[in-house]
Formats: sequence, C-alpha cells, structure tokens
Amino acid sequence: MKNILVIGAGLSASSMLRYFTQHAEKENWSIKVVDRDDKLAKAKVANCDRAEGFAINALDPNERRPLIEWADLVISMLPAQFHVEVAKDCVTYKTNLITPSYISKEMLALDQAAKDAGILIMNEIGVDPGIDHMSAKKVLDEIEERGGVMHIFESFTGGLIAPESDDNPWNYKFTWNPRNVVLAGQGSAAKFIQEGQYKYIPYNKLFRRTEIIPIDGYGDFEGYANRDSLKYRAKYGLDDIPTIYRGTFRRKGFSKAWDTFVQLGATDDSYILEGSKDMTKRDFINSFLPYNPNDSVELKLRHYLKIDMDDIIWDKLVWLGIFEKKTMGFEEDVTPAYFLQKILEEKWTLKPDDKDMIVMWHKFVYKMNDHFEEINSHMVVIGEDQTYTAMSNTVGLPCAICAKMILNGTIGLKGVHIPIHKEVYEPILNDLENYGIKFIEKAVHPPIMYLDPSMA
Amino acid sequence: MKNILVIGAGLSASSMLRYFTQHAEKENWSIKVVDRDDKLAKAKVANCDRAEGFAINALDPNERRPLIEWADLVISMLPAQFHVEVAKDCVTYKTNLITPSYISKEMLALDQAAKDAGILIMNEIGVDPGIDHMSAKKVLDEIEERGGVMHIFESFTGGLIAPESDDNPWNYKFTWNPRNVVLAGQGSAAKFIQEGQYKYIPYNKLFRRTEIIPIDGYGDFEGYANRDSLKYRAKYGLDDIPTIYRGTFRRKGFSKAWDTFVQLGATDDSYILEGSKDMTKRDFINSFLPYNPNDSVELKLRHYLKIDMDDIIWDKLVWLGIFEKKTMGFEEDVTPAYFLQKILEEKWTLKPDDKDMIVMWHKFVYKMNDHFEEINSHMVVIGEDQTYTAMSNTVGLPCAICAKMILNGTIGLKGVHIPIHKEVYEPILNDLENYGIKFIEKAVHPPIMYLDPSMA
Repeated sequence: MKNILVIGAGLSASSMLRYFTQHAEKENWSIKVVDRDDKLAKAKVANCDRAEGFAINALDPNERRPLIEWADLVISMLPAQFHVEVAKDCVTYKTNLITPSYISKEMLALDQAAKDAGILIMNEIGVDPGIDHMSAKKVLDEIEERGGVMHIFESFTGGLIAPESDDNPWNYKFTWNPRNVVLAGQGSAAKFIQEGQYKYIPYNKLFRRTEIIPIDGYGDFEGYANRDSLKYRAKYGLDDIPTIYRGTFRRKGFSKAWDTFVQLGATDDSYILEGSKDMTKRDFINSFLPYNPNDSVELKLRHYLKIDMDDIIWDKLVWLGIFEKKTMGFEEDVTPAYFLQKILEEKWTLKPDDKDMIVMWHKFVYKMNDHFEEINSHMVVIGEDQTYTAMSNTVGLPCAICAKMILNGTIGLKGVHIPIHKEVYEPILNDLENYGIKFIEKAVHPPIMYLDPSMA
Repeated sequence: MKNILVIGAGLSASSMLRYFTQHAEKENWSIKVVDRDDKLAKAKVANCDRAEGFAINALDPNERRPLIEWADLVISMLPAQFHVEVAKDCVTYKTNLITPSYISKEMLALDQAAKDAGILIMNEIGVDPGIDHMSAKKVLDEIEERGGVMHIFESFTGGLIAPESDDNPWNYKFTWNPRNVVLAGQGSAAKFIQEGQYKYIPYNKLFRRTEIIPIDGYGDFEGYANRDSLKYRAKYGLDDIPTIYRGTFRRKGFSKAWDTFVQLGATDDSYILEGSKDMTKRDFINSFLPYNPNDSVELKLRHYLKIDMDDIIWDKLVWLGIFEKKTMGFEEDVTPAYFLQKILEEKWTLKPDDKDMIVMWHKFVYKMNDHFEEINSHMVVIGEDQTYTAMSNTVGLPCAICAKMILNGTIGLKGVHIPIHKEVYEPILNDLENYGIKFIEKAVHPPIMYLDPSMA
C-alpha cells in the first residue's frame, strides 16, 4: 500500500484527483486530500473508499508534518511560494514531492539534500510549464539523436475558449485567473534571441508584434512574446541556439484590440484611480482621454488611438460595454487593472455549458548535414465540462501520471528536477494520449527560416 | 554671532555658499561647510575668513551631532532620504533646519516635536519645489484677497540650455542629473484633474500629450505632465479647484523625438540588457526592432515607429549617433536606460562656456463675480557660468535668503513647513529679484478656459 497526500483541492486538482480515485484500487493507494475548505476536500474524493478529504491549515508545520511523514508522495497544489516549506519537510521525512509550479532558486538549492534523502522532487509538471517541456524535449532529443543541430525553437501555449463555445467577437473568455490575463506581459520587457541577436519588446509594443500561426483544423492563432524566452536555453540544453522564442496564444485579432487598453493605460495595477468608486465604465475610459467638452468619449478614443471607422476592433470594444453609463458598484476606489477586469468579467465569463481549450505549438528548425529541416508539433485539448476542463486535465494528469510512476518505482531519478528526462517524459506523454492529450508532429518543407514577429 | 552649518558642498550648494560668504561679515555669521570631500568643502569657502570647510561623514551621528549642537541653523543638501535623521538631531539640539527637498511623511511627523523645540524646519525651498510654491502662492493669495475663486491652475518648470548656448537639434543639453532625465515620467501614470474630471496619462503616451506654451522673448516651450498634480490641491489649499495640472518644460519638438526611445523601450531601467557590454550603438537600437536580415536598422526603425522620410525627428536621432557602429566601452552589461544615457552624454554635454536656463510658468484662471479672469506669471533665469548656474542660483538662493531671515528672527513660524506663507514667500521673492530671479505677471484677455494637452 502506498500513501498519497494531495495538498490543495481547488480547480486545478479535479482531474488529478479523479485519476487517483480511479486508480486507487488497482494500484493499492491510500489517498488523503487536504484543503482549507473541508467541504471541498471531501467533495473531490466522495466516491472513493480509499480516499479521505479534510481541512487543515497546510501553512502550519504542526498540522502538515504528520501527514507528510505518513505519505510516500506529496503533491503540492499550494500557491507557488509555499512549495519550498513543504519540500523541506519532504526531505526530512524522505517523502517524494510533485509540484506543477516553476522551480524556484530556493527549491533548486534542496537538490543535494533531496538526493541524500533518496527522494525525487519533480517541479514544472503541469501544462505550461510541464507538457511544454516534455513534448519539446521529446522532439529535441530525437533531433539530437539523429545528428541534427537546433537552429530555431519556437513555442506557444494558450488557454482559450473551445470552438463550440466561441460566441463573442473577441474569441476569448476567462477560462483561468482573470487577473493574470489583465496583467499579462507587464513587468520588464519580453526578451528572446533571433539569429543570434538579442531582441527586447517593451509592454507598449508587446501586443503589436505578434506572429500568426495556423493550426490544422482549428484556424489561425496569434502569439505574443513571453517575458523570458532566454532561460529556456539552459533548461533545454540549447545554449548556442541562434533563435529561441516562447509566447502565448490568443485567437487572431485579439491582441490588436487588447492593445487599446494597454495604450490607454487601463491595465495598470500600480496605482489607485482616484474617484473610480463612483465612475461609470464610460468615465473610466474617459479618464485616460484628453479633456474636450465638445467631443464624445467614442470620438476622442478613435482620434487618440487612430482607430478607423471600419476597424474591426471597434465592434469588440463596443461589445464589451466600455462606453456604458453604468457604475460598477465598487465599495472603494480601485486600480485601473481591477476596474478593467470587472468590466471584462461581465462579458468574458463562461456560460454553464461552455468548454475551454488548451492549444500548444512548437516549431523546430535544425541543421542536418548541410541542409535545414523543420518539424512542427501541436496539441489541442478541449475541456470535458467546467470541472474537468482542458486546463485541469492538462495540469492535473501529468502530475497524476508522474505520481503513479514514482510510486511504482518506474522513475529512478533523485533530487530536484523538471520533466526533461526521457525516462520521465516518454511514459508520461504515452499515458497522456489515453486521455486525449496528444501531439501531432509534421515535417514542414521547405523549412521557414524565420517567422518575423510582425508589426502592425 | 550666529552659527550656520551647511551639510553637503556639491554643485547645488555653490550659489548658497557665495551668498553666505558675501553676507557673513555684515550679518555676523560663523559658517562651517562639511562634505565627504575635504577639498571640495574647503574650496567652496576659501575666500572667507568667517567660514571653514572640512570633511565629515554626515551619516555618522557622532560626527554630525556636535556640529548640529554648535549651529543655530543647519542647511542639509544631503540626498533627500537622509534629511530626517538630521532633522531629529535638530529637534534634540533646538537647531533650525532648511532643506530644498520634498517633505516626507517622516519629516511631517516631526511637526509637533519641532514646535515643542521652538524651531522651524523649512522644506521644499529650492526651485521646484520652492520658487514654484512661493511664486504661485503669491498670486493665489492675491486672487483670494480680491475675492476671486480659482478655476484653473497650471504650472510648468524646465531646466534647459540658455538660448546663447542652444546649438543642437534637440535644443537640449544635460544641465542636471542625466539619469533623472532618462527616467523622467516612469513609475505610475501622470495624474491631474481637468474641469472636475480625473485624467491619467500612462508613460507610453506622456510625451505625446504635450501642451505648447510661448514665453515672451523666449519662443515656444512644450510641457508634459508631472507624476502627481493632485497633491498640490492640498498643498495650496485648492481642494475644490476643477483643473490643476503641473508639468515639465522642454523646447518645442523635444518630446516627440524623445518618444522614439520610450516607444522602443530604450529608457527601461528595470532589467539588464544581455550582451550590451559588446553592443554598438546600432546594435542597441536594433535590439528593440524586429529581426529582418534584408532591411537596415534605419529602415526598420522608420517602419516600426512610422517615422516619415521628412519628419524632423529623424535629424535629431541621426545627430545623436544612435546608428553608429561603435561600442560604448562598458565593462559589464547594463540596463537600456544606462546605455541610452551614455549615448546622450556624448552629445548633450555642456561646452565650457555653455550656460543653463531655468524657465517657470504659471497660469491662473479664476472667477471674479460672474466672469473669468486669467493671469500668467513666468520667470526665466540664465546661469552665470558652470558654477553659478541657473539651477544653482534658483535652488541655493531661496535657501540662503530663508536662512538669513530665520537667523534675523524675521520669520516667526515654528514646526515643519513648506514656503507657502506670506511672511516667508514675500520677503524671499523680493530679495530674489536682487539676483535676477524675477516673475513677470500679465493679465490675459479673454481668459483661455482650457488648454487641452494636445495629441499627436
């Protein structure tokens, strides 16, 4: 009998817990699920005799540690900053650990301690990061084995609305944390390298330097650059690659319209908008426009951002209701980003039967002998419903399958890792196909030597 | 005999120390000037028997306190964050204090302690802040006395190059801290209020929403908005004013060209530009432009930022040498803002005989009975040379004159203050006129009811 402890029973744990409860009998698992919310923890494993859910405060070492000692494997679905404390306990009690989050410096520092304890701490094993690493590394390793030398690696992922639920002019709904969508791309400039030249895109140009990618059967997507593509050179062993570019997918046309809010300053979360408590949506937009008592807010916006009368972004903006003379009912003044988020939440919210979609796409160009070759690889996953979403499946199932492999002793790796080893990614990618999470690879002739992030 | 302690003998202390040494005999002053740099401190008072300069570490309480105890008045020219520690010592030893810096919360918290100690701590008594407060409050108080009700207050200040030294296409040279010029406007959005409506300008629009102001005899200037105009409502007792707008002057045409660097992301100081140690100026500009092996950096820049072939900003950019294939000689990678600053310092540096210029302009529109009236007020100060610059004179002389008044007992005020009281600003403004720092006020008929920050 193996003991599994899952810390955190929120949205992203649903698919993982379904996997665990479905496999518990056959694999001889005993499962405990803990959360701050007792009801939630119980509900997620209600139909399984081998699992129990209950409330603890996982941030209290005294509540957490006896459970970590009991477990053979812990899966931490806590917010990323709390993983390290859990990891230290796992080292103490020689318990394996899985997290879907980016590896932190503090986590990496536990590598030797984890090896000494004989445990594996596997990080970045959700969808992005996670499936991106595994699916990319699979092709990269194959290319290397065949003697190819990588020249271009591009990779895009998007959390979007499924085509059957795609019924608004933005081709977008909130399928994940709305706040992250509003703040996306802020902070320092996006950096990448192209043909050996470092390239930097500031926030005010980020949504205008997009690249259009068609995906077979799903139409056109557009990608904007992620913050730091450069760190993936070290992660993937591509230190000398001339071009590496990672980005985020939206449906074609989204970014140009979204840039309206960026240019206005409406996505800023760094200050409180004085008087915003009593502002209508129209007042909110007007607060970013020059004063002119003779022109309407609509006319000022068109003039200010040079939006032509027949520009299709106009319909998107009007559809959002940004010109309505309606207050938001805030109890206090808020930041521009929060105000915008609440406007968007009135329109971009999922209907009960809506399904989400995760799309991932990789481009590999490599030199083989004296010529270049190209492989593209893509995955499209549609959610089952609003519990077993594409997001929940693609985050939770890699964690769950990895857990099974660790408990079975299939993975011999010890220490602090991300899933870039063949012994890890190969069986996980294979098992994911049983759940409809599948990559389609194709050769591209002739290779497209550079996809220039285009300009408006 | 009265004792004056000046902490800090840098550039901005020159004019103040000249005033002190010139008046020391007549006013019966004994003056000590301390600085980290012994030579500098000595040099600034070399020609005066009543003054001595020497080195101390002013951040060490044991070195500082005996001098503060000795003094009747301290003038702190330290970086702003160190004033509070000096102020606490001044409370302890019942020594008056003057600083040219913005009042901090911590400083304001000393108000009652300063009153109990029977001392005056006068802040914001340089040029901006300082002369701006005094010259504005003078007109505001006059309008109030005449029964006028303020409707619009606008105020702009610029530190620029004097017309006789203005010989480059930017009509700009560094006359003060270059780093502050490169970073100007960054942080949160500029906020102000216009006809009762809150207005916010994000950084990426700041240099495109400028206002053109002609100054009699000096041609056209343009102003961009300062970070926070709203706080001046409370400072000046204008809580209900419909329009308040403060900004910074440049010569007309500067901002549109400067916006090139803003749009590129070249003013960003938040990250290190990988590889910048070995980049040429041309590489630096290219790092913000899309990759395209067929187009020149010049063509890509024109295309990216939609700069017409005959746009006058082009000559400005070329003149700066930004397309030169020349490295900067950095010893390590730097931020974009630092790289840009070093490019600019090669071109915007003062020649030995160049003089600087401070320009300040206020606009007051007020309701008198049932009609509106307008007054404009402006000051232009040209530097004498590169020691007694316009900046040094306008920062140092208000401090020095205020010091004289405190020591003479002319100012009865106690506690922590800024110079908005008539008993303070009136004699200081009068004395400043003896040094060529003079405001010219004129009535404007009919009043211009709103100057809309224009759009490109």
